[in-house]
Amino acid sequence: MARIGELYQAADWKTEKHVPVIECADEVAAEEMFDVSVSLGKEIAHPNTTEHHIMWIKVHFKPNEDKFSYDLGSFEFSAHGASVEGPNTGPAYTNHSVVCRIKLKKSGVLFASAYCNIHGLWENSKPINVRQQL
Amino acid sequence: MARIGELYQAADWKTEKHVPVIECADEVAAEEMFDVSVSLGKEIAHPNTTEHHIMWIKVHFKPNEDKFSYDLGSFEFSAHGASVEGPNTGPAYTNHSVVCRIKLKKSGVLFASAYCNIHGLWENSKPINVRQQL
Amino acid sequence: MARIGELYQAADWKTEKHVPVIECADEVAAEEMFDVSVSLGKEIAHPNTTEHHIMWIKVHFKPNEDKFSYDLGSFEFSAHGASVEGPNTGPAYTNHSVVCRIKLKKSGVLFASAYCNIHGLWENSKPINVRQQL
Amino acid sequence: MARIGELYQAADWKTEKHVPVIECADEVAAEEMFDVSVSLGKEIAHPNTTEHHIMWIKVHFKPNEDKFSYDLGSFEFSAHGASVEGPNTGPAYTNHSVVCRIKLKKSGVLFASAYCNIHGLWENSKPINVRQQL
Ligand SMILES: [Fe+3]
Ligand SMILES: [Fe+3]
Ligand SMILES: [Fe+3]
Ligand SMILES: [Fe+3]
Repeated sequence: MARIGELYQAADWKTEKHVPVIECADEVAAEEMFDVSVSLGKEIAHPNTTEHHIMWIKVHFKPNEDKFSYDLGSFEFSAHGASVEGPNTGPAYTNHSVVCRIKLKKSGVLFASAYCNIHGLWENSKPINVRQQL
Repeated sequence: MARIGELYQAADWKTEKHVPVIECADEVAAEEMFDVSVSLGKEIAHPNTTEHHIMWIKVHFKPNEDKFSYDLGSFEFSAHGASVEGPNTGPAYTNHSVVCRIKLKKSGVLFASAYCNIHGLWENSKPINVRQQL
Repeated sequence: MARIGELYQAADWKTEKHVPVIECADEVAAEEMFDVSVSLGKEIAHPNTTEHHIMWIKVHFKPNEDKFSYDLGSFEFSAHGASVEGPNTGPAYTNHSVVCRIKLKKSGVLFASAYCNIHGLWENSKPINVRQQL
Repeated sequence: MARIGELYQAADWKTEKHVPVIECADEVAAEEMFDVSVSLGKEIAHPNTTEHHIMWIKVHFKPNEDKFSYDLGSFEFSAHGASVEGPNTGPAYTNHSVVCRIKLKKSGVLFASAYCNIHGLWENSKPINVRQQL
């Protein structure tokens, strides 16, 4: 059977503009909220036009010792210059970046995925160490 | 690097209640709209409670000869009996099934994914043959 | 303060192609699953192009006697012919229609909203009578 | 006909924990990206439990002189402590706040809406002045 995992493209974000970059602390305290920034195009900007844009970024978490994984957030970027006056004439554009806030109880891996409307699915991941409180 | 594809669980839908079942024609005419039904639990029902439910089903398409793949639809099931009077006392529940309508120009593979809030990511796929019009 | 309710446009679906049409039974049994179809353009088709399309339909429920209302489902239509070869050359299109399945415990009003990427927010509603089981 | 606008609740965010607070510059330059932060509970925290939580925040824009309005972003907060071991035992929680980045060409009003799974729809808005570049 074809597997969806084969469709997620990975690459070095320094040379590939579609790769989501996850920025957060490497270690956090258990059950304390912290910020996670996910963005594309830190080195090479991705277009944001009616015809070609990033539709969403999703953030997912897999605890190291658990069997199952968890959706943390799904962030849709909806405005790309569309207008009744024609493509790329509209008054609003949403950038492909997000800062969200999460808390974790266990160490694991953060996954970010992103979708370009013409270049498909992209992914990245970052291990995160969760320090148990005494 | 950890890959998100490893988190998608696959199984036989006849014995595993989390697997999305894709129902549509095996062959369709190019550029003609057709229905795609995706549901879980055709043989074994999945729970739908405030604490345990299917949050979404997504449908994705990879043309056989193309490099990139495409999101077709994302379907969120939002109501699971929550209420100010406590869990599972609410007036509304949304089932984990959807019928959408698509048209394709090329043969490829339809992918369905589903997410249970406590049992994580699940997937299935179905090849579809697109008959070019004369 | 400006209110978002003022942005939702309503009209007769027989003459306005953006209005979501809700199709389901007028009366259902409490706690029994039933189908709800929501679609646009039953009389006049809405375009589905890279530059102009329906991005989503949402279904919401307000029980007559309750203070609060509930999201039932959010359905995104993602493919509109975009491709690396240019707008409207892509292999996939998702139509602006959905069939979902819900169950209710109380009578109330179903609301459907829809969003066109250039013509904004549209709405419709349909009362539904829920017959209590003996 | 019942209108969905009647379901959006508004209040003073200093005394009502469900009201989304929009934080951004009052005036921005046309076509320059700027940050918009939207969060709930700046003065009074909203719960984040499996049974009671904020499911999403949406950001919308209406240019003052235009007929139609635009979705900017839709941000879903997915993790609320659910787990196979029972509600509120899970390893992950997503907070009800987001920072997104947008650019505008015209002055108008930013709308934020938020949805609590048991307390329904809430809204707020903020005028924004867009300074045309010379
Ligand atoms: Fe791209
Ligand atoms: Fe499950
Ligand atoms: Fe339209
Ligand atoms: Fe609440």
